[in-house]
Amino acid sequence: MATTHKEFVDFFPQLTEDILSELPAFGASPKMIARIKEIIEYNVPGGKMNRGLSVVDTVKIVRKESELPAAINEKAMVLGWAVEWLQAFFLVADDIMDESSTRRGQPAWYCKPEVGIVAINDSFILESCIYRLLKKYFRSEPYYIDIIELLHETSYQTELGQMVDVLTAPENDVNLDRFSIEKHRYIVEYKTSYYSFYLPVALALLMTGTPAESPVFQVAKDILIPLGVYFQIQDDYLDCYGNPAVVGKVGTDIEDNKCSWLVVQALDRVTPKQRKLLNDNYGRKTPAVHTQRVKKLYKELDIEKVYKTYEDRAIAELEDRIDSIDESLVPRQVFTAFLNKVAKRNK
Amino acid sequence: MATTHKEFVDFFPQLTEDILSELPAFGASPKMIARIKEIIEYNVPGGKMNRGLSVVDTVKIVRKESELPAAINEKAMVLGWAVEWLQAFFLVADDIMDESSTRRGQPAWYCKPEVGIVAINDSFILESCIYRLLKKYFRSEPYYIDIIELLHETSYQTELGQMVDVLTAPENDVNLDRFSIEKHRYIVEYKTSYYSFYLPVALALLMTGTPAESPVFQVAKDILIPLGVYFQIQDDYLDCYGNPAVVGKVGTDIEDNKCSWLVVQALDRVTPKQRKLLNDNYGRKTPAVHTQRVKKLYKELDIEKVYKTYEDRAIAELEDRIDSIDESLVPRQVFTAFLNKVAKRNK
Repeated sequence: MATTHKEFVDFFPQLTEDILSELPAFGASPKMIARIKEIIEYNVPGGKMNRGLSVVDTVKIVRKESELPAAINEKAMVLGWAVEWLQAFFLVADDIMDESSTRRGQPAWYCKPEVGIVAINDSFILESCIYRLLKKYFRSEPYYIDIIELLHETSYQTELGQMVDVLTAPENDVNLDRFSIEKHRYIVEYKTSYYSFYLPVALALLMTGTPAESPVFQVAKDILIPLGVYFQIQDDYLDCYGNPAVVGKVGTDIEDNKCSWLVVQALDRVTPKQRKLLNDNYGRKTPAVHTQRVKKLYKELDIEKVYKTYEDRAIAELEDRIDSIDESLVPRQVFTAFLNKVAKRNK
Repeated sequence: MATTHKEFVDFFPQLTEDILSELPAFGASPKMIARIKEIIEYNVPGGKMNRGLSVVDTVKIVRKESELPAAINEKAMVLGWAVEWLQAFFLVADDIMDESSTRRGQPAWYCKPEVGIVAINDSFILESCIYRLLKKYFRSEPYYIDIIELLHETSYQTELGQMVDVLTAPENDVNLDRFSIEKHRYIVEYKTSYYSFYLPVALALLMTGTPAESPVFQVAKDILIPLGVYFQIQDDYLDCYGNPAVVGKVGTDIEDNKCSWLVVQALDRVTPKQRKLLNDNYGRKTPAVHTQRVKKLYKELDIEKVYKTYEDRAIAELEDRIDSIDESLVPRQVFTAFLNKVAKRNK
């Protein structure tokens, strides 16, 4: 997989060049081209690229080849980068809406002095690039319309998830009455799971010739959406209970008023008195004693055990679903590859 | 055309209902559905709808029918509303970027207290609705992919125009060195002309069976893009020289630091001393004497005559191009209908 990673990263400049080289036909000046180059290079690469790489990995598993023919490999990488590009489109906009100042260890794009609120239009441009690239590489493929429709639908799902997220936990307005297990589930499913877990596999299946109406897409969804939810719940758990040295960051979900899985589980179990304590202490940036009180309440409610119970059941259920897959439809390994990376991770 | 207008407006609730009725399948709660209803109803209708109506008008001309068969009429209205919906997507975002507080006589969407910066995500949702509607009404049509590609390309063009616009005339940063005739032309062509003039006709042509590779699209572009540029230049002219009682608003382009056609023509003709006067007085909201000095300079340079000369030449050139159309390709009336509405308008 190490070679896949390097190859994937090395392929990125070709896609940037595809976008830039057609800009003169759109009347763009050298200054505009330089700016679009910067928008792309600042925002698209630089993540862990798990989503993009999983398109390539899935194509390999479906085709039962450890090395792909050059033309297939290229197409899989384009689709992998399309997922990363879609994420960049959303993250540029999310950072503005969340007033986040950093992203991937550098200033958020809109925070750069020469950018500002114009970053909204830059996010649109990132989205448009996806369809330019698909047109260039997939126009003559019979599944071209299917990947476009899939990307449209996934974008819509992600936007619906983002809508619930911002309405549930608006900046600077703490109100735990808006939090619930159901809303948490909706947000993680729609805002993250569809584009991060289902989309890469669905693209790989379409690219390898699976007809859009095949039942395999529902099978994939029924495993990958809960798997993505489990992944996000792990994130919420590690934010509070992970080892910062291993996770790579100190969690701040409590002080940031996040609709975390931990708090919705706590809210489901509190006495009226404990609920008042949560109301008075959740989402307070300073002093640190507020966060400590919330953590103490989590301990009283043994939320860590609630998590462990959830995790064991989630893994067991996912394993059951994977075991029941008819392998003439799709190799189980498509899903075990994901589950093995996610299960019991500590970072 | 009055019946077309009423029919077009009356058709809108059906499209809203199409979007809302499938939201439960996206797991949406009644509260989410109510909010998406408000996003749509607040932002999509309410304009003059010239763009949307011109899709229906063009289909009638191409088919040489004053009344369309019901199924064709419905499709034309869907595409007309798709153009209006695309505009809503852009206007919601533009108002945030321009810090505009009103739109169509009501508060800009992002200015409403319950909305704010989340309006960014709402603009994405408006964009996604377009592709939901296209999927519902055009999925089985042979030109389905062509209208999707056209909308993608037009969105990209509009975004490129918006990019140059915000870079050329950023809020609160007056610098006339950035203004030029070429940039003005790029902005009006890309930010407005493609989606307002070319897109409605190109959609109508695709819908009436014109193959995507037909030379008629280039013919249409060669007329409609300059026609749209002329329309925008009229806007710039009327902002300063129109009768506010007829135009319906008092122009503020000078105080708003707009890269107007008038100022780029003035900059092309000034002496160094006059340029200093422009530098010192353009884009100053108060006191009003700044704006008066700019208008006095326009008078000295006889910019009004420069406009009249441009206008006469633009109309003559457009008429020539329309006259040279091979009518076996496309009826000239498609374009004369537009030109007659635009030429010498005073509002």
